[in-house]
Amino acid sequence: MSGFFKVKTLDEVLGMAQLFSPVGTEALHTRDAFSRVLAQDLVSGENLPGFRRSCMDGYAVNAASTFGASESGPAWLALQGTIAMGDIPDFELAPGQAARISTGGMLPVGADAVVMVEYTEAVDDQSIEIYKSVAPLQHVIDVTEDFAKGQTVIEKGRLMRPQEIGLAAGLGHAQIQAYRVPRVGIISTGDEVIPVDKTPAPGKIRDINSYSLSALVTQAGGEPVRYGIVKDDPKALEDMCKKALAETDMVLLSGGSSVGTRDYTVEVLSGLTDTEILVHGISVSPGKPTILARSGHTPVWGLPGQVVSAMVVFQVVVTTFLHRLRGLSRPVLQVKTPARLSRNIASSQGRRDFVRVVLEQDGHNLVARPVLGKSGLIRTMVQADGLLEIGEHVEGLEKGSMVEIILLS
Amino acid sequence: MSGFFKVKTLDEVLGMAQLFSPVGTEALHTRDAFSRVLAQDLVSGENLPGFRRSCMDGYAVNAASTFGASESGPAWLALQGTIAMGDIPDFELAPGQAARISTGGMLPVGADAVVMVEYTEAVDDQSIEIYKSVAPLQHVIDVTEDFAKGQTVIEKGRLMRPQEIGLAAGLGHAQIQAYRVPRVGIISTGDEVIPVDKTPAPGKIRDINSYSLSALVTQAGGEPVRYGIVKDDPKALEDMCKKALAETDMVLLSGGSSVGTRDYTVEVLSGLTDTEILVHGISVSPGKPTILARSGHTPVWGLPGQVVSAMVVFQVVVTTFLHRLRGLSRPVLQVKTPARLSRNIASSQGRRDFVRVVLEQDGHNLVARPVLGKSGLIRTMVQADGLLEIGEHVEGLEKGSMVEIILLS
Repeated sequence: MSGFFKVKTLDEVLGMAQLFSPVGTEALHTRDAFSRVLAQDLVSGENLPGFRRSCMDGYAVNAASTFGASESGPAWLALQGTIAMGDIPDFELAPGQAARISTGGMLPVGADAVVMVEYTEAVDDQSIEIYKSVAPLQHVIDVTEDFAKGQTVIEKGRLMRPQEIGLAAGLGHAQIQAYRVPRVGIISTGDEVIPVDKTPAPGKIRDINSYSLSALVTQAGGEPVRYGIVKDDPKALEDMCKKALAETDMVLLSGGSSVGTRDYTVEVLSGLTDTEILVHGISVSPGKPTILARSGHTPVWGLPGQVVSAMVVFQVVVTTFLHRLRGLSRPVLQVKTPARLSRNIASSQGRRDFVRVVLEQDGHNLVARPVLGKSGLIRTMVQADGLLEIGEHVEGLEKGSMVEIILLS
Repeated sequence: MSGFFKVKTLDEVLGMAQLFSPVGTEALHTRDAFSRVLAQDLVSGENLPGFRRSCMDGYAVNAASTFGASESGPAWLALQGTIAMGDIPDFELAPGQAARISTGGMLPVGADAVVMVEYTEAVDDQSIEIYKSVAPLQHVIDVTEDFAKGQTVIEKGRLMRPQEIGLAAGLGHAQIQAYRVPRVGIISTGDEVIPVDKTPAPGKIRDINSYSLSALVTQAGGEPVRYGIVKDDPKALEDMCKKALAETDMVLLSGGSSVGTRDYTVEVLSGLTDTEILVHGISVSPGKPTILARSGHTPVWGLPGQVVSAMVVFQVVVTTFLHRLRGLSRPVLQVKTPARLSRNIASSQGRRDFVRVVLEQDGHNLVARPVLGKSGLIRTMVQADGLLEIGEHVEGLEKGSMVEIILLS
């Protein structure tokens, strides 16, 4: 079976995310929308701020009344009143007049700028002197300066960060339409795998992958759905796959790290209705023995059983597919921090290597120190602060060279 | 009142996080512990993996039996049997013998290495040839190679990332002791501020800060508790502060951006029992008019009313205090990505500037383009991908220079 498949490059596999579609949408309170993805263009129903607003504490004026004002030749203005916060001024300003105003206050009709209080002095109860001129619209946010009515302010497919939440609230959108959180089914396989609350006999090992993968799913914006452990039995795996496919938007099988198990995973997946194997092996290390299938509209992954391999493949491959399902319209900026490499490091050409590294502060710079250890050791991921990516065409990297590290946060 | 206070540097203020203590602890299911902070040293109660485990599909052997083996002079070994996954081998291996084994399988007594299947060939049912020698412990994870019994595997104060969750599960810790999620009270102030579901009359503006700050609290690992909007009235503010102080671990007041309001915020806070003003002004821009008080064991912030200023101060100052309350024992690595500056940018000496920037891909590199606009415009934060920090002693930065950008994710 596996003989028919050629190992694919990372870029080829990442491109396949476009074969899948975002999940459905739902209405959501804006206050609960943090880190969700917008499923509508959000249009401004009104102007923001909607009135001419002061950015400073000082005096609202007609800018022209201050032209030429200086320390030696101040402008003299008649005080018309004080504008209380949140109030509509009940007077207008004529040239030569001013009104006390606080940051956030509404300018009266006739005023087009604010003089900072620092550049003024009260002469008496009815007049002030001004020592510095202001330009029209200085220290003022104009009626449509943040957003104008009818303008698209956040586009469909954008991530709702704190600022997008604030903006939606500011425009009165108490609810928004967002993509659902994709449900991701997680199935561990292997006769040697036992539940976490059991004590392993020799030869057995606890189900680490269900836990680490669930947390990765949460971190990437999905909802993990755990289906527990399936023994190395094609019929049991088939039944569990069908159940997970019916209930979730993406399925992760992990384990089955041996050649035999991989083969029967491929066979089980191939036997499902409307299912095709898209990938059987990716030229990355760790993580080469990765399987990707499409079952109907649902991506199904056969991840390596080695704990580190499964986590790295999730970070560098599966995340892109989960972002696609979440409805994100543009790639999330992958966070890479520059660091200096602590030692020479070898790499095989023709595959993308991801090396676990510890980051250590050295003065103002970071030093990346590779973590040694096999990809079956979760210790190496616990020690690691990040992953160093080494390209397909690079033979190795030299001690002291500057590299970019993908942070594992 | 404010005359007594000297503006403090960012570093001085960040150092004050140590004046506060982490919140209490609680028992938690490990599966729910993602992004929580460990409140105990996690000790390994057993060895991991606990048995000598194969990393490859192939043959378990005594390494010495393969010494000198090559393509031209293969070693001949007698096949003793096949080790099923998860089983304890019911035989031992003598020198000159081998057993079929899959990745993850348990080595029999007498075996200390695995030969990859690629370097073997079956001669008949009872014997194989081996074309490459292996060293002792090659392609094997030894009994304590991940962790040894009694070893501290995750230290108190560490963030539970997916790998720490996996490790805790692998060692059988179905529950862990974690710090509580700090509750952060959020109070908006100002006569001009109205609830999000109301339509603002001229001069009024919706309560953006409660929404954007709540999302920032969630993002930084806290639980936001909204107390709504308080009018510019000292008694009302005092009552609401007392309520929030009784119910939460940190309090954020936002608004009160005018000098008068700032003064009465300081007065209200100073009037509370066992409360002192620690900071009245920070030399950062935007965000200078920031107040920090200690009320009992609780930090209370008076954030600027300008939406952008409040968000930037949260990101660069408040987050450090929230991490302290969460129990994090070491600073979270601040994510900075290198980029080339698109234009000259001026800065005032003596203060730390945070400039909003858009990041654009230019070939393999990123270009940082400053976003223009006042700190009252939330648009400028919605456009921004990150913040460019300019130090106190820098007068400005030149077009084309390499800068590091704090990502706003």
